[in-house]
Amino acid sequence: MIISTKHGTPQIEITKMVESFQSMGLRVSVITGTDYTVMGLVGDTTHLDEKRIRANPYVDKVQRVSEPYKLANRLFHQEDSIVSVRGIPVGGKEKLVVIGGPCSVEGKEQIINLAREVKEAGGHMLRGGAYKPRTSPYAFQGLGTEGILDMVEARRVTGLPIVSELMSADKIDEFEECVDLVQIGARNMQNFQLLKAVGRMTKPILLKRGLANTIEEWIMSAEYIMSAGNPNVIFCERGIRTFEKYTRNTLDLSVVPILKLKSHLPVIIDPSHATGDWRYVESMSLAAIAAGADGLIIEVHDHPESAWSDGAQSVRPDRFRTIIEKGRTIAQVIGRDM
Amino acid sequence: MIISTKHGTPQIEITKMVESFQSMGLRVSVITGTDYTVMGLVGDTTHLDEKRIRANPYVDKVQRVSEPYKLANRLFHQEDSIVSVRGIPVGGKEKLVVIGGPCSVEGKEQIINLAREVKEAGGHMLRGGAYKPRTSPYAFQGLGTEGILDMVEARRVTGLPIVSELMSADKIDEFEECVDLVQIGARNMQNFQLLKAVGRMTKPILLKRGLANTIEEWIMSAEYIMSAGNPNVIFCERGIRTFEKYTRNTLDLSVVPILKLKSHLPVIIDPSHATGDWRYVESMSLAAIAAGADGLIIEVHDHPESAWSDGAQSVRPDRFRTIIEKGRTIAQVIGRDM
Amino acid sequence: MIISTKHGTPQIEITKMVESFQSMGLRVSVITGTDYTVMGLVGDTTHLDEKRIRANPYVDKVQRVSEPYKLANRLFHQEDSIVSVRGIPVGGKEKLVVIGGPCSVEGKEQIINLAREVKEAGGHMLRGGAYKPRTSPYAFQGLGTEGILDMVEARRVTGLPIVSELMSADKIDEFEECVDLVQIGARNMQNFQLLKAVGRMTKPILLKRGLANTIEEWIMSAEYIMSAGNPNVIFCERGIRTFEKYTRNTLDLSVVPILKLKSHLPVIIDPSHATGDWRYVESMSLAAIAAGADGLIIEVHDHPESAWSDGAQSVRPDRFRTIIEKGRTIAQVIGRDM
Amino acid sequence: MIISTKHGTPQIEITKMVESFQSMGLRVSVITGTDYTVMGLVGDTTHLDEKRIRANPYVDKVQRVSEPYKLANRLFHQEDSIVSVRGIPVGGKEKLVVIGGPCSVEGKEQIINLAREVKEAGGHMLRGGAYKPRTSPYAFQGLGTEGILDMVEARRVTGLPIVSELMSADKIDEFEECVDLVQIGARNMQNFQLLKAVGRMTKPILLKRGLANTIEEWIMSAEYIMSAGNPNVIFCERGIRTFEKYTRNTLDLSVVPILKLKSHLPVIIDPSHATGDWRYVESMSLAAIAAGADGLIIEVHDHPESAWSDGAQSVRPDRFRTIIEKGRTIAQVIGRDM
Repeated sequence: MIISTKHGTPQIEITKMVESFQSMGLRVSVITGTDYTVMGLVGDTTHLDEKRIRANPYVDKVQRVSEPYKLANRLFHQEDSIVSVRGIPVGGKEKLVVIGGPCSVEGKEQIINLAREVKEAGGHMLRGGAYKPRTSPYAFQGLGTEGILDMVEARRVTGLPIVSELMSADKIDEFEECVDLVQIGARNMQNFQLLKAVGRMTKPILLKRGLANTIEEWIMSAEYIMSAGNPNVIFCERGIRTFEKYTRNTLDLSVVPILKLKSHLPVIIDPSHATGDWRYVESMSLAAIAAGADGLIIEVHDHPESAWSDGAQSVRPDRFRTIIEKGRTIAQVIGRDM
Repeated sequence: MIISTKHGTPQIEITKMVESFQSMGLRVSVITGTDYTVMGLVGDTTHLDEKRIRANPYVDKVQRVSEPYKLANRLFHQEDSIVSVRGIPVGGKEKLVVIGGPCSVEGKEQIINLAREVKEAGGHMLRGGAYKPRTSPYAFQGLGTEGILDMVEARRVTGLPIVSELMSADKIDEFEECVDLVQIGARNMQNFQLLKAVGRMTKPILLKRGLANTIEEWIMSAEYIMSAGNPNVIFCERGIRTFEKYTRNTLDLSVVPILKLKSHLPVIIDPSHATGDWRYVESMSLAAIAAGADGLIIEVHDHPESAWSDGAQSVRPDRFRTIIEKGRTIAQVIGRDM
Repeated sequence: MIISTKHGTPQIEITKMVESFQSMGLRVSVITGTDYTVMGLVGDTTHLDEKRIRANPYVDKVQRVSEPYKLANRLFHQEDSIVSVRGIPVGGKEKLVVIGGPCSVEGKEQIINLAREVKEAGGHMLRGGAYKPRTSPYAFQGLGTEGILDMVEARRVTGLPIVSELMSADKIDEFEECVDLVQIGARNMQNFQLLKAVGRMTKPILLKRGLANTIEEWIMSAEYIMSAGNPNVIFCERGIRTFEKYTRNTLDLSVVPILKLKSHLPVIIDPSHATGDWRYVESMSLAAIAAGADGLIIEVHDHPESAWSDGAQSVRPDRFRTIIEKGRTIAQVIGRDM
Repeated sequence: MIISTKHGTPQIEITKMVESFQSMGLRVSVITGTDYTVMGLVGDTTHLDEKRIRANPYVDKVQRVSEPYKLANRLFHQEDSIVSVRGIPVGGKEKLVVIGGPCSVEGKEQIINLAREVKEAGGHMLRGGAYKPRTSPYAFQGLGTEGILDMVEARRVTGLPIVSELMSADKIDEFEECVDLVQIGARNMQNFQLLKAVGRMTKPILLKRGLANTIEEWIMSAEYIMSAGNPNVIFCERGIRTFEKYTRNTLDLSVVPILKLKSHLPVIIDPSHATGDWRYVESMSLAAIAAGADGLIIEVHDHPESAWSDGAQSVRPDRFRTIIEKGRTIAQVIGRDM
C-alpha cells in the first residue's frame, strides 16, 4: 500500500504514521519529495482499512498495490478451481455448462416439461425462480417453497441439477436440502449478511454481479463467501446498468478474461437478463463462448408471450438447441467442448 | 398504460390483447396507425406487469402514464406526511431535524461523549452504526448488540432518539425494542425480503437510496415497506455512484423537489457519505437546506483521524455546530426553522 | 408519437394541441381516460421536436413509436449497406475486415514497417493517428500533416488503405485527398458541425461511439452525416464509460445485433481502446466476431513499451496474426470469412 | 508520480526505468517490497504521460500525486481569479451574477423583450442560443448569424452583456466581435481543437461540463484554453448523465466546493439544463447559492409552451424575479451579495 501526504505535513505527523504502521508489523519506506512525502508499506496489508487511513487529515492519497482479496486471488491459487454441481464440473478446461429454464417456476407440469426440453436440447442444468426479486410489491413474487418442490420433481424426472435464487437467510435450510446451485442475485451481491450465511452452506454458490458494481467489489463478495468457509463460488455476469436504452442492461464480456487473470474461480454468462431481449441472446451467447466463459445460463420458455415474468428475454426450446449447437463449434475452435 | 405494437402485427393478435386487458377490468381504446397500433388502457394498472406485456412478441413499447406506486404517491395523499421519531416530528412544515454521530459506535464512553456534543451543538438525534456493511470481510464489521446497547445508554443520558442501520431480519426484535429510527442502508434498498420485514415493524424507517437506483425504484422500495403495514418512511439521499473521482459519490439534491412533488413522505440528506470528504459537508448541508430538505444526517467525530471507520468524512463537533447555526438562517429564509 | 396529458388538463387545451398537430399534416387519435388523455399521432413525425412538445405545461409524457432516424433506419432500407474503402467492401456478407496499426504515427520508417507487418499478418487496412485527442494540453498531440504523409507513403509501399482520425473541419481537404477511411473519434461523436462537414466529403466515415452515448444517439450522428449527403458510414464500438476500474472502458458487444436490427450500416469493433489492455484484446476480438461484427480495428505496435501513446493496449504483430488466424475459424463457424 | 511494478520484474528493468526518469530531470526514490517495487518521482511531472508509462509491461500501477493541471491549479495561484465580462466581475467575493434568457434566439423582437424582462427582474447578463447543438439533424439548428445580431441589438437596447454558444472555429471572428461571454457547450468540452482556438480569443469563456466527464477532465479542458493564452475561464455545471429518469440530467452541486479548493476560477450553475424541468429550477438555484456558486444561468421565456426549444425547462420572468429575490437573501447569509 502506498500513502502520500499533503503539502506541508509536519515531520512529526509523518513519524507518527510510520510508527503506527510499524506497530502493525509492516515495513515502511519513506520517500521525501519537495511537495509531499510518500510511504510505501511492505507486508500483508489485506486487513488495513483504506478509509481509516484516509481519515488522517494529513493523508492525500492511498493506493493499494496488492489486491484486497486473498482466497479468490489467482496469485495465491495458480490452478483453475473446478466447482462441482451435483457431479457436473464447472471451470478449468472442463466442458462448458449450459443452464436453461424459465425465469419463474409457474407450476409442476410447466417446469417438468421445460426440464425435458432443456435436457433434449443439450442443456446440463435447470434454472427456475421460486423466490423472485421484484421492483414492485404488487408484482408476482414467486411460488416459494412450492416452486422449489416443483424443481425437485423436475430434477427427479430428468436428472438435471437445479439452480434457484435464494433471497433471505431464513430459507437456507430449504436450499441446503433441495437446491444444487444456490444463486445470489444481483441486488443481493452486497447483502453481506446473506453472503456470510451462504458461506456456511455446503452447496456451491452462483454469485451474480451487482448492477453497478466493479469487478473488484464482485470478487470481494466472493471473498466473503469463501472466508466464511465455502470455497465453491461461480461468478455470473448478467449485465450492468448503463445509459443504453435499447437493452435492459449492458453485457460486459470483458469480465471473462479479467476474472481468469485475477481469480481462479469459474465464470458463466447470462445473456438473457443482460440484454432483456431474446433477439440478442444467440449472438451474445456465441460471443461469451468465444471470450472464454465456462458456461451460459439462458432463459427458456415454451410460450414466452404468456410467461409470468421476463418473457421478452426468453428463447424457445428450438432456439436454445440452436445456440448449443453453434456454441459447441465455437467452443471447439478455442479448445473447449460444450 | 399505453402499449404500441410492432409493424405488421395481425389484427387477430391485437384483438386477443384487447380482450385480455378487458378481462382484467380495464377499458381499452385503440388507435390504428399506418405502421403500428396503439392501445390505451384506462383503469387501475398498478398491478399490471410491464415486463409480462413486453414479452408478447407483437408488442413494441409499453409506457406507464400513471406512476406504479400508490401508498407513497402524493396524488392520492395530498398533505405532507409527518413522521414522528420518539416524539420528534419530521416533514411538512416542521422544524428541520439534524442527526449527528459517528459512523461506527466504538464504545460506551465514546458514544455518550459524542451524544453530549451532538446535543450541545444543537442536534436532535444521535446516529451510530453497530452493524456495518463493509466491502471487505476483513474490515471492522461493527460492535453488534453491544453497540446498540451503548447507543441506548447514550439516549438515556442525553434524551436523544437513536438511529442505527439494520442489515438483516434476524435482528428485528433487537431494533424494535431499542432503536428509534431504523435505517435501511443503500446496499439493501432492493433487499426486498428485508423491506417486507421492516414493513411489519412499528418503528419508523430511514430508507437510504441505492447507489445506482432511480427515484422511481426508491419510491417503490418505500411502497414495499408501506404495503406491508408501516406508513412511517423517511427518504435519505446519500449520493449516487457516478464517474466522478474527487468525491466518493455524487450528491443528488434534485431529489428534494422531485420527492416533494411525487410523494408525501419526508426527505433528509446525508452529505457525509455522499461526498466522503468533511471539507465539502458544510456547503452541501447548506445547499440541502436551501433545496427544501426536511433534515440532515451528518457524521460527527471527536477525533476523525482515529475513527474506526469513515473518519475522512466526519466533521468535528465545533464544525457541526457551525453548520447548524448557518443552516438555521438559511432555513428561515425559506420559511422553515431548524 | 404518443402524447399523454396531465391530470386535470382542460378540454380546450387538448383541442388546441390536436389542431396544432393536424395543421402539421398529422392524423390525431384521442383516448380519454379518467385521469388523463392520450393523443396518438399518425404520419411522419421525424421532424417533430419532442422537447418542444414537452414544453407545453399540460403535457405529461411524450413517447416516440417510430425511431427518429430515417436514412440509417433498416425499416426503409432492408438490405445491408456495403461500404467500399478504396475497393475493400465492408458489411453485409463480405469478408470481415481487420484494421491494424499504431495509436500514433511516430515517423515514416515506423509506420512503413508496421504497415508491412500488418499486411503480412493478414490485416486489410492500416490505422495510425496523426491528430490526437488528448486530455492534457501538455501531452503529445500527434505529428499532424507530416503523420498523414507518412501514412500515404506506407500505403504506397504496401497497398493498404489508410484510416486516420479527423479532429477539425479545417483539415478536411487534407483528409479528402489523402485518407481512405475518415475516423470521427468518440469525443467528437456529437460535434455536430464536424458531422455536417464530413457529410459533404466523398470518403467513407468511421464513426466511433461516444463514451456515454446511447445507440440511438449514435445512429442519429450517422443520420447527420447521411443527411448531409454522405451515405458511407461505418459504426465503430470502442467501449463506453462505466464504473469498472480494471478496464479503461467497457466494450458493449450487444451493439452488434442491435445495430444489425435497427440499421443497415456496417459495424466494426475496437477492442484496444475498449479494454485499454492488450491482455484482453484477443478474447474480445474473438467475441466480437462471434457476435457478428463486420470487422475489427486493433492497435498494433512493434515495441508497445516505448510507444508514444497507448502502448499498454497495443498487441505485437505476432499476436495480431494469431488473432486473425483464430478469428477466421470463428468467422467461418457463423458463415463469414475473414 | 508513484509507479509500482509487477511481481517478478527483473532488477535490470527497474534500473532502466529509473535511468529513464532521471534523464528527464526527475529525482527517483525506490522502495523494494517482497512482491513489488515502487518508484516515487519527485519534480515537475506535468508533462509525463501516464499512459505511456503504463505501456511498459513491467509497470502495474501509476498514480499521480500532483494534479496534472498547473495554470488552473489553486496551488500555484492562491487568490481567486475574477473574470470580467464587459465590466461585470465574476468570482471571488464579488456579487453573484445571474444570466437569464431563452434557450434559442427566436427573433429580434422576442430577444429584446426578454432582455428587458431579464434586466427588470434583476438579471445581469442575457443568454440566447444562435447556434444550437441538436441530437437530430432534422431539429431546429438556430438562427445563426442573424440570431447573434439580434442579441447585439438586445444588448444595445438594455446594456446587458450577451452570452452565446460557439460550436465551431469558423465562427470565432463573429464571436470575438459580437459576444461578451463565449460558451463552450457540454458536447464540445473535449473538442480540443475548439478549446485551443478559443484559447486565442480575447473574450472570456464559459466552459460547460461534459455530460459524463470528471471534474479533473473539466479542469484539464480549462487548462487547454489557458495554456493557449486565454486566462479568463468560468466553469459552468449543467448536470451530468446518470440513470435517473425524472430529470434530464443530475445536477452535481459538489463541484462548487471542489472547484473552489482545486482551482481559482469562478463557477456558475445552470439549473435549467441540469433538471430539464422548470418546476425544479427555483430550489436548485437556491441550493447552488447556498453551496457557494458565483452565479446562475437560467432559461427564461415569456411563453415556454411555444418556445422553439427547451421550453419545458424555462421559467417565466416573474418566477425569475422571485428566484433572484430569494437567492439574494441566501447569498447574504453566506456573506455574498447578488
